[in-house]
Amino acid sequence: MENKKSDFSSWYNEIIDLSGLSDKRYPIKGMNVWLPYGLKVMKGIDRIIRDNVDISGFQEVQFPVLITRDQLSIEFEHVKGFENEVYWVTRGGREPLEVEMALRPTSEAAMYGMFQLWVRAHTDLPLKIYQIVSVYRYETKHTRTFIRIREIHFFEAHTAHTDYDSAEKQMVEYRQIWDQISSELCLPFVVDQRPDWDKFPGAMYTLAFDTAMPGGRSLQIGTIHQYGENFSRNYGIEYLKEDGTHSYVSQTTFGLSERLLAAVIGIHGDDTGLIFPPSIAPVQIVIIPIPSEGADTDSYCSRVSQILSAEGFRVHIDNRDNYTPGFKFNEWEMKGVPLRIEIGGREVRDNKITMRLRTGGDRIKCRIDDLPSEASRALASLKEELRRRAFEHFERSIEDGNSLEIMKKGETMFRFYWCGSKECSDRIEGETGKTVLGMQKENENKGKCLICGKDGRVATASTPY
Amino acid sequence: MENKKSDFSSWYNEIIDLSGLSDKRYPIKGMNVWLPYGLKVMKGIDRIIRDNVDISGFQEVQFPVLITRDQLSIEFEHVKGFENEVYWVTRGGREPLEVEMALRPTSEAAMYGMFQLWVRAHTDLPLKIYQIVSVYRYETKHTRTFIRIREIHFFEAHTAHTDYDSAEKQMVEYRQIWDQISSELCLPFVVDQRPDWDKFPGAMYTLAFDTAMPGGRSLQIGTIHQYGENFSRNYGIEYLKEDGTHSYVSQTTFGLSERLLAAVIGIHGDDTGLIFPPSIAPVQIVIIPIPSEGADTDSYCSRVSQILSAEGFRVHIDNRDNYTPGFKFNEWEMKGVPLRIEIGGREVRDNKITMRLRTGGDRIKCRIDDLPSEASRALASLKEELRRRAFEHFERSIEDGNSLEIMKKGETMFRFYWCGSKECSDRIEGETGKTVLGMQKENENKGKCLICGKDGRVATASTPY
Repeated sequence: MENKKSDFSSWYNEIIDLSGLSDKRYPIKGMNVWLPYGLKVMKGIDRIIRDNVDISGFQEVQFPVLITRDQLSIEFEHVKGFENEVYWVTRGGREPLEVEMALRPTSEAAMYGMFQLWVRAHTDLPLKIYQIVSVYRYETKHTRTFIRIREIHFFEAHTAHTDYDSAEKQMVEYRQIWDQISSELCLPFVVDQRPDWDKFPGAMYTLAFDTAMPGGRSLQIGTIHQYGENFSRNYGIEYLKEDGTHSYVSQTTFGLSERLLAAVIGIHGDDTGLIFPPSIAPVQIVIIPIPSEGADTDSYCSRVSQILSAEGFRVHIDNRDNYTPGFKFNEWEMKGVPLRIEIGGREVRDNKITMRLRTGGDRIKCRIDDLPSEASRALASLKEELRRRAFEHFERSIEDGNSLEIMKKGETMFRFYWCGSKECSDRIEGETGKTVLGMQKENENKGKCLICGKDGRVATASTPY
Repeated sequence: MENKKSDFSSWYNEIIDLSGLSDKRYPIKGMNVWLPYGLKVMKGIDRIIRDNVDISGFQEVQFPVLITRDQLSIEFEHVKGFENEVYWVTRGGREPLEVEMALRPTSEAAMYGMFQLWVRAHTDLPLKIYQIVSVYRYETKHTRTFIRIREIHFFEAHTAHTDYDSAEKQMVEYRQIWDQISSELCLPFVVDQRPDWDKFPGAMYTLAFDTAMPGGRSLQIGTIHQYGENFSRNYGIEYLKEDGTHSYVSQTTFGLSERLLAAVIGIHGDDTGLIFPPSIAPVQIVIIPIPSEGADTDSYCSRVSQILSAEGFRVHIDNRDNYTPGFKFNEWEMKGVPLRIEIGGREVRDNKITMRLRTGGDRIKCRIDDLPSEASRALASLKEELRRRAFEHFERSIEDGNSLEIMKKGETMFRFYWCGSKECSDRIEGETGKTVLGMQKENENKGKCLICGKDGRVATASTPY
């Protein structure tokens, strides 16, 4: 396998192939097949997302994939932002359609006409819904599995509120939900408020969660958007207030995608292969028998598996007889299983367990009676270790951009003081080749703009995927 | 609400609206919005499907929605069967696409090029996969929610085997899986082997599961198909046999859709509203407090809810204070919740429970200590009652078609003897307006063809949806 540090891009493609996450040989570029193992991991991520938005009062819905040209054109900035990357359906059977229809690139235009029907009075608010669906972008740039593709596995939450302040509170709730999700996935990030020229088409402002991939490029792994009344005025989403007058709703959205999986692969993996956080690992614990004269390893494996399954662990016994234990060790390490249990003659004889974490370290030995708690403890420590490594890597991946020269030469992300102007951003991008991702929302530090010397705040620049 | 017997079609549309399953006001005809309640029920059905195919060794995958014209054209009968009802994507952004692409109407053409890459040797077989995705048909007929629509929630299983006999064994396994699924949903059916002129485009033969909807029309709620080598020869899906020679695989498929939900709604519902089998009810037990002077019904409700939730029941307490108990009874009956618990002063004082089944009958009283087991028993008896009613209705819905006159006048499905010829089928269809659905696969009776008098077997005719 490729070395992750020296050639991340090749490593990334190779591990996706080897571990059976996705098959990109489908005849349409940028549209890949989700293989069973990859789909299981993605569903694990979806489960974490659902669990967290469900308890916050969101309801799951599913809108049609097609959006008429009329629907899409209602909000001008929005259609302008997407019309160059939309797939158009123009024919049904052999006949041209009377109305051309777009494959959703995102679902504002699909949803907000219905919001207009659903929202009547203040008692209907807040309206909080989400869907997990495929969205489509006609990408003309180089495609890359889970990162830049044409059919995207997408989570989108949409809300409507009585006023701007309530919508702002929703933005805070999103931020908390994101803390939970990113924490389960052990993913570090910085919150960048996108510059006005780079915000979501139609939004008042956009906050993005940017992480650092190996090799130094940044990856946007989530966004939350404040729409204010930009859409509601165009789609006519009004409600009756308690005082008998009418008002437009304020709206927000929260978007996530399979880029979360890309980040998990890239940030946690190593030269041996994938490493999955326990919460999304399709197999959390693999049990491998080491055949041993006179010992019934098979029934001991079953017993161990039953004990663990009963406690809710996702367990797999690899009892294929045409592969050596060493081959199996390598294969399951490559596939990112967090914990391995090895069962040989000694374990059977002594009623013991020997475990090994995917992140390394000594073998852990315990009595079979202590198994579920010891396995829990081991998985928790793996999660901590993944988080520690990831945050350490992230620290190293953002450097101080004290001069244009440093930012031009560096292969990391950069933090620097910026006044917020387009002029200074253009100069930075022109001279360093890096993109200004925006002001760091949660960093209060103040300083002089790297370019113009005026008052500024901490901003992020990088080569984004 | 409409009377179900006297105007099923209006009843059906009205209950879907009232209960909040689906919203058909979306601006594209035949493309509806899955509302939270409807999506939960459909996911319940999906869960039953997944549970049953997963334990049979199927693996879940997800293929792209787009299929190039070239992919689709590889099997001639197949493309001929679908080309009049396919949506075509012809433009990306502002540019015409070099290659036109279809929204999948079904996924044979998407999958089998990949099968050709995946299947190398006999050790790769059987290959058993499935996906649950939306498929698209440009319907020109009148659309109807969950029955005839343009964006269909679809389950499709696809297999490849070493030879025809193994594929036939798969057909038997499908039949057993279908027994489990239909049994959970309490749906009766007859297995009709579609006439050659009505089989799936590209199949050697098609077995359909046909049920009877109120009003007498039949509804095809599932199909299994034997493809033999029809697709594998065209897509080049060959494998290396143990003896060193190569052979084409034999293939099968199994298809289900949201029509299962249509059948559940239509067959189990009554003039009060929906009735869901417990396995798919989003709320299995609703708890309604009856406010009573001096009794803390709220905390008793919470206690009951906790006891039931801990045992895995899906429970909801309706403690809205702006609605009367009577209003709540009606609403939850309309929404099809199988079991209701009423908690008033007497229940609190005596540590008792009062329950009522959605299918009627006396109120059930028990001590709170007996609650989980009594609730299980009640739900099991509701399921039995649904099944009994459904099978009784089904019995009444298929009559003997002893003459063309009877079949012409009748508003039910019919069984009759048929020789299997196209000529006799055409005559039946021409004179009665009914469609010949095919020979009843599991009925061994023999008799003389209603039309020509030659040797025949039992066939089914109806007005299908």
